[in-house]
Amino acid sequence: MGNYSDVLNNVRFVLSHTSHPGNIGAAARAMKTMGLQDLRLVQPKLFPDAMAVAMSAGATDILDAAGVTDTLGAALAGATMVAGCTARRRDLSHRLLSAREAAPLLLAQAAAAPVALVFGTEMSGLTNAELDQCQMLVHIPANPEYSSLNLAAAVQILGYELRCAVPELPAAQLASPALAQHDDLELFYLELERTLVMTGFLNLAAPRRLMTRLRRLYARAQLEKDELNILMGILKHIHSPAQINTPRPSRIVD
Amino acid sequence: MGNYSDVLNNVRFVLSHTSHPGNIGAAARAMKTMGLQDLRLVQPKLFPDAMAVAMSAGATDILDAAGVTDTLGAALAGATMVAGCTARRRDLSHRLLSAREAAPLLLAQAAAAPVALVFGTEMSGLTNAELDQCQMLVHIPANPEYSSLNLAAAVQILGYELRCAVPELPAAQLASPALAQHDDLELFYLELERTLVMTGFLNLAAPRRLMTRLRRLYARAQLEKDELNILMGILKHIHSPAQINTPRPSRIVD
Repeated sequence: MGNYSDVLNNVRFVLSHTSHPGNIGAAARAMKTMGLQDLRLVQPKLFPDAMAVAMSAGATDILDAAGVTDTLGAALAGATMVAGCTARRRDLSHRLLSAREAAPLLLAQAAAAPVALVFGTEMSGLTNAELDQCQMLVHIPANPEYSSLNLAAAVQILGYELRCAVPELPAAQLASPALAQHDDLELFYLELERTLVMTGFLNLAAPRRLMTRLRRLYARAQLEKDELNILMGILKHIHSPAQINTPRPSRIVD
Repeated sequence: MGNYSDVLNNVRFVLSHTSHPGNIGAAARAMKTMGLQDLRLVQPKLFPDAMAVAMSAGATDILDAAGVTDTLGAALAGATMVAGCTARRRDLSHRLLSAREAAPLLLAQAAAAPVALVFGTEMSGLTNAELDQCQMLVHIPANPEYSSLNLAAAVQILGYELRCAVPELPAAQLASPALAQHDDLELFYLELERTLVMTGFLNLAAPRRLMTRLRRLYARAQLEKDELNILMGILKHIHSPAQINTPRPSRIVD
């Protein structure tokens, strides 16, 4: 794998709609103690802020380099595996892993391409719309009667598990297939939705949670780049079925 | 070992000469999230204090019950195994364990009698006199260039490792969704193939391994029964797009 710090550099920590700048600083400190550095902030309430600097205890390099975006999608651009951190039990069918189970999976993929961990607000965690952009959920085992970890504490534990998992990576890596990127996945979901409306399966006036269910299904599959190309090809042919026997893209290989 | 909470109750967290009451409160919160409750304070600079209460985020029961002593020896009364937490390499010949290695040892002993983890001041850690009262040292793997974990963060990680090490800790119990059955999956693949031929995406004279790739994709997702119903509904609507806004099957629920 070469230098393990390269792998940790490929793990992005995304804090969405954080209320307290002190928590951002404390999260930066927690990241730095574990050798992580890629911090992204989605619409932080206050940032930059003196409290963030104070709580970072010298991890100001992480704060200075932190990318601030308007949307979670922008913060996830280029990420190939996206895990949402959650304390609550969720009803829908995301793959649910403990922090210890998730760390080696994330690291293995980070050896090839960026991955991301997403943390919601201090009060309410991740919204359903945010969860829709995650491929798996990660939870930290906690006291069921009092599971409210501080945001920076959750960042600390996930970072710790990632660091502990570095030496456990197999020396001989299996070649991982190239995974689809977040932004391409979003294009696919848009195109899928358009197709379902066109065929009459999806009524936008009463969508229930059809798109959410489909997102989670494909999220569990962890689509590869080639597979996403196949699915996009299928949708194109549904739109234009006249092109009978058009050659399929040459990148569809085994 | 009986009830696992009994074991965690037998692990004492001792904070020596803590400077900032906020850290005491944050440590109490961290302990409570992991189901720990026995907090001892050796000559805290300020305690009780409103900042400790604020940072405890509701873990005031831990603060209220915290024993305050003048000496480390008094805080350790009755403890049978004492581990000092340290970030620095120590020259003397203490047994040095990682947090992950120490947790099961401490727990095993806690099943029989109280054990203790000792944390020094925020600035300088444990003194040599304090180390002399410890039987082993515990360290948290960290970035060698920036290993300064916040006191509450160190408490959080040790507590987390203890909780993870409890053998009969109930796993997150999730009701498993009903998975699709093999024969229904085979019907879906047949129907999918028929659709792809109809739209011209699949040429049966030169199929390459398209259906194999799609099968693997959906196999990885471990389709649920409800999800398979959705996918079958989508295919039906592609075949008969005229039925615009036909109600979808009622079993499509979240």
